[in-house]
Amino acid sequence: MEAKSQSIMADSYAMNGGDGPYSYAQNSMYQRGIMETAKRMINEEIAMKLDIQKLSLAASEPIRIADLGCSCGPNTILAIQNILEALKRKFQTHPTPEFQVFFNDQVSNDFNSLFASLPELGRQYYAACVPGSFHGRLFPTASLHFVYSSCALNWLSKVPKEVVDKTDPAWNQGRIHYTGAPKEVFEAYSDQFAKDIGSFLQARVKELAPSGLMALVIPAVPDMISHPHITTGSEFELVGSCLMDMAKMGIVSEARIDTFNLPIYYTYPKELRQIIEGNGCFSIERMDMLNIPKQHIAMPDLRQRTVYIRAALEALIEKHFGKKIIDQLFEMYSRKLSESPIFLKPENQKTTAIFVLLKPI
Amino acid sequence: MEAKSQSIMADSYAMNGGDGPYSYAQNSMYQRGIMETAKRMINEEIAMKLDIQKLSLAASEPIRIADLGCSCGPNTILAIQNILEALKRKFQTHPTPEFQVFFNDQVSNDFNSLFASLPELGRQYYAACVPGSFHGRLFPTASLHFVYSSCALNWLSKVPKEVVDKTDPAWNQGRIHYTGAPKEVFEAYSDQFAKDIGSFLQARVKELAPSGLMALVIPAVPDMISHPHITTGSEFELVGSCLMDMAKMGIVSEARIDTFNLPIYYTYPKELRQIIEGNGCFSIERMDMLNIPKQHIAMPDLRQRTVYIRAALEALIEKHFGKKIIDQLFEMYSRKLSESPIFLKPENQKTTAIFVLLKPI
Repeated sequence: MEAKSQSIMADSYAMNGGDGPYSYAQNSMYQRGIMETAKRMINEEIAMKLDIQKLSLAASEPIRIADLGCSCGPNTILAIQNILEALKRKFQTHPTPEFQVFFNDQVSNDFNSLFASLPELGRQYYAACVPGSFHGRLFPTASLHFVYSSCALNWLSKVPKEVVDKTDPAWNQGRIHYTGAPKEVFEAYSDQFAKDIGSFLQARVKELAPSGLMALVIPAVPDMISHPHITTGSEFELVGSCLMDMAKMGIVSEARIDTFNLPIYYTYPKELRQIIEGNGCFSIERMDMLNIPKQHIAMPDLRQRTVYIRAALEALIEKHFGKKIIDQLFEMYSRKLSESPIFLKPENQKTTAIFVLLKPI
Repeated sequence: MEAKSQSIMADSYAMNGGDGPYSYAQNSMYQRGIMETAKRMINEEIAMKLDIQKLSLAASEPIRIADLGCSCGPNTILAIQNILEALKRKFQTHPTPEFQVFFNDQVSNDFNSLFASLPELGRQYYAACVPGSFHGRLFPTASLHFVYSSCALNWLSKVPKEVVDKTDPAWNQGRIHYTGAPKEVFEAYSDQFAKDIGSFLQARVKELAPSGLMALVIPAVPDMISHPHITTGSEFELVGSCLMDMAKMGIVSEARIDTFNLPIYYTYPKELRQIIEGNGCFSIERMDMLNIPKQHIAMPDLRQRTVYIRAALEALIEKHFGKKIIDQLFEMYSRKLSESPIFLKPENQKTTAIFVLLKPI
């Protein structure tokens, strides 16, 4: 067995670490809103679907939970706490087992910040972290009982190679994302997403115990038709247009922009269902759009909107264009955002997320 | 079950992170020498003592290995590789199981450097890390099969409180360690060591599977009589005398030195045996002094000797005295070392380490 040979050599992206003004920890309220909305569904599904008799636990075996793509902020701690409470309710009439929680993210994730935010007192689980890409194997066979992943599977394992190939019809010239791009660009992204979900499911079905469950929360759009109009994708387009402005000002080269693309994709329910069903490893026990209450999308403010995008994209942009352009880029972005107030109206926020509960077949 | 409530709230010490000139990764050749010497004993003991029939592994259960106090350098990777090879030789006539390795150290350990040094290709285990003090519980019950800890148990969970208490006979005035101190100081350290090993063994006996094994390599002195003459302890005394010189120069206050003590203790075979036997959780399957070949103590050079001590102590000293004094302190230390060439002769190097193999009773 070579754990690594089964894994995918994915590119490593990580959110901004630490707890500074541009950190993911301080700027993940949107992801927090999604998580809070998914909480009720997770509670219901654990109550209904988790078969603790069949969980085939030896008396001494702990229940193992994994959060894949946990990042470093407080969201993962809260999500795990919720899952744990739901599981403990299930064991009310049984001896409560021990719990072990595995926090997974890319090698470059700020794990020390994550560890520092682990509750010191009253923590009811043994904590461990697992570095690496969830597009490949991370855990021994059948060793997990509940897998959770929120706001992580919208990150592709890599930028589709076609979009940086000048000779390909999918070459994404002058843009950094598929929003507003020809359909070939969108299709290249969509194909990469299907491959990534496929490898994710193949790895997880081996890692999950036969009676385990997997709850995924995946940022998405309501349907394909609305794709060109969604806010978040258009915000990426806005970042791209700021870069193009910087090219006109001679600060970056256009060629450099042409080789930069965001490895982010927003799926839609029909597509996700087709990929999962086509994969054949898991049955879909539930699939719902998350009707995220507006109060959870706590981004009415220009500064907050800017740092939210910055927390997520800064590391990627810095790696490609260098550190020097970052401040100016996000100043320009902020100005453009204020000049297009459409972005700041909550009713134009069309992004949502899909909740899906899966069971190994 | 409250994992945390069973744990000890130990102080957090960590080696210098990163891979810079003062990093632990670059300055742990001495620990590497100890590890290499222990390698043969671990190989022999796994070959002889590990009962894979009794390891009561379900077909799908992985073999779980932990390195407690792994730090961030390359030593842990090599040590684990050696253990893994020895285990795989045992399974030659059986189906090879999967392996999962848990790297443990304090929350403030540089885990990102550790992850970055994990082999990308050909790694034959799933890696996880577990942040926290090994003086308390870290893992679910009976979940580990082989526990290893090298050059870590000489770190106490805390400085014994008596040595910073002005009213106590063990008050350690004008020194930062027990070397050269009155016997009350030494006894306070020795008592703390016994308590720490006790809590370590209590935690581990619950975490180890009944047929598991634990190999400990503990920096030590050959016997109590030689205590005042050992090199490493005297080197701490030398650091303390530099601090006292700085106090005379008005750079630090004497009172500040009186409240600073190194949480490091060197046991000796008779004492360690008594603690383990008195604890009653483990049987001693083997106890040997490591006759570390001189070529492994690769510290003949003044600069190397200085950075070796600096890599281990800098974080602790900085926390108490601030960053500003560090460079000057180690310059003074280096000068004193060169003026006392006794320290630079390998034949005066009296520190050694105890190898002990334990089995749960």
